[in-house]
Amino acid sequence: MVDVDAQVLNALADQAGVEKRFGTLEEALEWSAFEAVVVTTPTFTHASLAIMAAKAGKHILLEKPMALNLDECDAILETVSSHGVLLQLGFMRRFDPEFMAANERIQAGEIGQPMMIKSLTHGPGLPPAWARDLKTSNGNLAEVNSHDWDSLRWLMGSNCERVYVEIANFKGKAAGVTTENFYDNALVTVRFESGALGSISSICPCNYGYDARVEIVGEKGIMLIGDLRNQAIVVCTDRNQGLVTPVHSTWAKRFEKGYIGEMQHFIECIQTGAQPRVGGEDGRWAVAGVLAATRSFLEVRPVYLNEIMKQDIT
Amino acid sequence: MVDVDAQVLNALADQAGVEKRFGTLEEALEWSAFEAVVVTTPTFTHASLAIMAAKAGKHILLEKPMALNLDECDAILETVSSHGVLLQLGFMRRFDPEFMAANERIQAGEIGQPMMIKSLTHGPGLPPAWARDLKTSNGNLAEVNSHDWDSLRWLMGSNCERVYVEIANFKGKAAGVTTENFYDNALVTVRFESGALGSISSICPCNYGYDARVEIVGEKGIMLIGDLRNQAIVVCTDRNQGLVTPVHSTWAKRFEKGYIGEMQHFIECIQTGAQPRVGGEDGRWAVAGVLAATRSFLEVRPVYLNEIMKQDIT
Amino acid sequence: MVDVDAQVLNALADQAGVEKRFGTLEEALEWSAFEAVVVTTPTFTHASLAIMAAKAGKHILLEKPMALNLDECDAILETVSSHGVLLQLGFMRRFDPEFMAANERIQAGEIGQPMMIKSLTHGPGLPPAWARDLKTSNGNLAEVNSHDWDSLRWLMGSNCERVYVEIANFKGKAAGVTTENFYDNALVTVRFESGALGSISSICPCNYGYDARVEIVGEKGIMLIGDLRNQAIVVCTDRNQGLVTPVHSTWAKRFEKGYIGEMQHFIECIQTGAQPRVGGEDGRWAVAGVLAATRSFLEVRPVYLNEIMKQDIT
Amino acid sequence: MVDVDAQVLNALADQAGVEKRFGTLEEALEWSAFEAVVVTTPTFTHASLAIMAAKAGKHILLEKPMALNLDECDAILETVSSHGVLLQLGFMRRFDPEFMAANERIQAGEIGQPMMIKSLTHGPGLPPAWARDLKTSNGNLAEVNSHDWDSLRWLMGSNCERVYVEIANFKGKAAGVTTENFYDNALVTVRFESGALGSISSICPCNYGYDARVEIVGEKGIMLIGDLRNQAIVVCTDRNQGLVTPVHSTWAKRFEKGYIGEMQHFIECIQTGAQPRVGGEDGRWAVAGVLAATRSFLEVRPVYLNEIMKQDIT
Repeated sequence: MVDVDAQVLNALADQAGVEKRFGTLEEALEWSAFEAVVVTTPTFTHASLAIMAAKAGKHILLEKPMALNLDECDAILETVSSHGVLLQLGFMRRFDPEFMAANERIQAGEIGQPMMIKSLTHGPGLPPAWARDLKTSNGNLAEVNSHDWDSLRWLMGSNCERVYVEIANFKGKAAGVTTENFYDNALVTVRFESGALGSISSICPCNYGYDARVEIVGEKGIMLIGDLRNQAIVVCTDRNQGLVTPVHSTWAKRFEKGYIGEMQHFIECIQTGAQPRVGGEDGRWAVAGVLAATRSFLEVRPVYLNEIMKQDIT
Repeated sequence: MVDVDAQVLNALADQAGVEKRFGTLEEALEWSAFEAVVVTTPTFTHASLAIMAAKAGKHILLEKPMALNLDECDAILETVSSHGVLLQLGFMRRFDPEFMAANERIQAGEIGQPMMIKSLTHGPGLPPAWARDLKTSNGNLAEVNSHDWDSLRWLMGSNCERVYVEIANFKGKAAGVTTENFYDNALVTVRFESGALGSISSICPCNYGYDARVEIVGEKGIMLIGDLRNQAIVVCTDRNQGLVTPVHSTWAKRFEKGYIGEMQHFIECIQTGAQPRVGGEDGRWAVAGVLAATRSFLEVRPVYLNEIMKQDIT
Repeated sequence: MVDVDAQVLNALADQAGVEKRFGTLEEALEWSAFEAVVVTTPTFTHASLAIMAAKAGKHILLEKPMALNLDECDAILETVSSHGVLLQLGFMRRFDPEFMAANERIQAGEIGQPMMIKSLTHGPGLPPAWARDLKTSNGNLAEVNSHDWDSLRWLMGSNCERVYVEIANFKGKAAGVTTENFYDNALVTVRFESGALGSISSICPCNYGYDARVEIVGEKGIMLIGDLRNQAIVVCTDRNQGLVTPVHSTWAKRFEKGYIGEMQHFIECIQTGAQPRVGGEDGRWAVAGVLAATRSFLEVRPVYLNEIMKQDIT
Repeated sequence: MVDVDAQVLNALADQAGVEKRFGTLEEALEWSAFEAVVVTTPTFTHASLAIMAAKAGKHILLEKPMALNLDECDAILETVSSHGVLLQLGFMRRFDPEFMAANERIQAGEIGQPMMIKSLTHGPGLPPAWARDLKTSNGNLAEVNSHDWDSLRWLMGSNCERVYVEIANFKGKAAGVTTENFYDNALVTVRFESGALGSISSICPCNYGYDARVEIVGEKGIMLIGDLRNQAIVVCTDRNQGLVTPVHSTWAKRFEKGYIGEMQHFIECIQTGAQPRVGGEDGRWAVAGVLAATRSFLEVRPVYLNEIMKQDIT
């Protein structure tokens, strides 16, 4: 286990029963008696750490978002490719039983050709300073909503063509946030290459719980994925108040099975040499969406993914 | 409009815009310029009022329960029959859109041959003194749960053969109720002539709301009728509390459409001369069930409806 | 009753028990023995009929959308004002018990300052030719989604400042629709004057049912209004298929109470002389939203309501 | 791993990666290099296997029902006690997150003093011959509903005082079952020592799914535990059919977390020497309930647990 903070490192390693402990990835790579690296650090460190790991021949499970920009994404992709290691992105919703079952049913044609998708991720808790700053994180649309960007592409089976975004800042001032362009609400409209439409709703911090739901309408029908409800317990003790049901309060609990599933998949891929079913290209598209979205609200206009892809690549 | 309490009479008649007002049914029958009577008085007055109305040639919409015992039921049935008037019982659930749709689907065979039914009616508010006393009302199983007795027969398409009942008294003491055999909880087990099983759950007063739900399992499937939820509004403002949804709080609101529907049906029957689709025989079976149930908990044994039917009739 | 089609006129008037029947509003106004007019004709006739009725001193309940453009709206408003008649707009959701309760709770501050609202109306059935053509109707965003435009302003307590819209046409070709700019899917993003964000989702025809739901997130919490579910009946007969629950299939049934409520309100306003609580200004804002939205998708850019308001008024 | 069927043994042991394989418990006990035994054989073998394991000093996780009668239960309890081994009963619902959370909230007084509980377990699939025969299994009330008996005592915090049971046999004949007293439907009424009431609903086979739900009403409110719904996915493709949601189809999936939880708890108890939080006394009460219930439907009368306890013990 690696952490720059020795106290955090020791607490977590004790809890997990891990003996080998390092302050930097470099030190760990010197020891080298392991096959893979799981990178869960802030976004602005992803590219350097992933490239370092790839050069050392380690397989990589990289947390979302993949990187800060497309140049970084491309650098990771090239190093991973030239060193023959596996790269899996931490889009755990792809391993959530409900999202997996929903995707299979959509691909099987149950609701027909998808016409419109709406995905929302709303979460409690003010993000840390680096995650509020466009320069170190690209903001909530990257940190909170990377999963929505990936789900849109995955479930619709089509890439984004252009995006338009409106943002709002309701709670920043009261929370003392003075970061330029900080937003706690964002509403993204997406036009897909297939002609279909989509939206991503981002709210953070919102104190009512952790909320991740998707609605898709196809030519034949509608599908709703996910629920506000956490446990199947309903209590009523006051008829003026009404029925009360527990709500999802954290992403870790909501997607517990997804987190376990993505780790199992990563291990299986290492054992069998199979390519992870969610990789660097998926991470790159999510980053491209965020960059187009950011430009959209800065310039108050729809932005084509093409504009971003070209500029960043060159 | 008729009411023994002039103040209540005037308030209600003003509200409804009714000019003719009487202190007793006798006075109203002397005036006589009307076709039908709606009897909504306490149970112990049903037989005398219904018989008086029938003798005067008035059609009758009679609130549940029909009467206190089978002798009274039979006297009503005979007078109604000999005077050629219509008798409709106030089982408004038979006119509730959900109960009607459910019944149609059951009769159409959607869940197969019914094997088991569970019906519950739980309501807020301590019943008035006359409704708590077995002698003037037969207690909650009659006053609150007449509807369940009727729904069981209606939805299962079979008569009760025998019943077993357990009762409990949790809140009576604190509420100062000293009536003999008072109960605020009752659990009825029914064996139908068809061999199917059923239960009725009675709780009153229960302060969480007005709760009326039915579950039926047939050889092919299950059907749930009714919901605790009142309005399709979900609010969450605190992730430690969870989702909050309005609950049904009164029977008048819960079965608003049923009450309107039963009145429309009664008027149509008078206009066309058709027999109401819920009549005296239905009311009589509900009374018989309650009497068997009462004997069951008094004697702590299963009681056959046959025992009650024979004894009361002779 | 007035209808240009004698056959339709007679069928409906027979059903409603209306004796007086006319082929045109002019004829009815010559007879004149009535106080008010309910205009439910296609949008392109609203202005001329409403103005004719107002000049004849009749109060007006005008179906949505108010008119085709802001000039027409203003002409109606001026005539209504100068002739001292009442004008109520047919936004029946304002009279739906769930929407009313939700609005009261929002205004009371239950979810705090509203930050984001999402309203959807999806309906079955290909609209008639005039309702598919921007020139005679402004398309689905006007005909199907007028209610959403009104709900957004009402529930958020703020006017739209600018809108951005993406549209799609998935089913037109197969249905033989060749109308220019026809769309069956539209996704609207709204920025409110308050700084809050909103979206309207429009799909028609969609064959899964009639779907009208709203989600609002405020600084303190979330509120969901409406439900796909029609009746509280759940059936399961096959564990491979799962639970089945009835869905709303038509707007007339879904908003039955709203339609009755708006008519009662209109009559009360005529009787008391009170201004209807949803009037011409509300109708005008909904039209302005649609016009800005249409320009947005035609010009692929966000459009300020201000642009529309200015241009149309002069 | 032990199984009398070598083919089954090898298949399961391969799957689980277990090397040591035995045809009988005796053989396994000769090898002896293990600490604990998990007994998942048919009920009529429980007493002999558990006693054998206890005498060999092995801790025991014993599947429900504990045994066929109270003599067997007492023999197990005595041997376990005299040999100082741990005995845990396989009531996995005590380790299900929803049941655990519900129980904590009830014990904390959230719904007040419990007045009435209803627990149902309905499952698909005709039970094997030994589980249909009262002599080898005590029938469905033991095999399917042991969990309900335990949940009643656990959640209500009170022992059963007397029970009354009605049974029905709807599907036996068509399935060729000729076993005496076979039933596929049973409805149990319980009176608790506390004065509270309860019911257990048993249906097996029922093909609509695996259904395990509980409702409890206390003096202050109601609590519903569990749901028919399996996944938070709603699909609608036909407005005449309605909304479709996956249902629980097997107990193994429904209580997956409970099964894992009970095993973790058993291991922790072995490691720490703590008594399992659901033990032999709990198993014995569930057996006593079943025996009283069986006598109730055979003799068509309410039966006191006391009658069973005395008779079996002496």
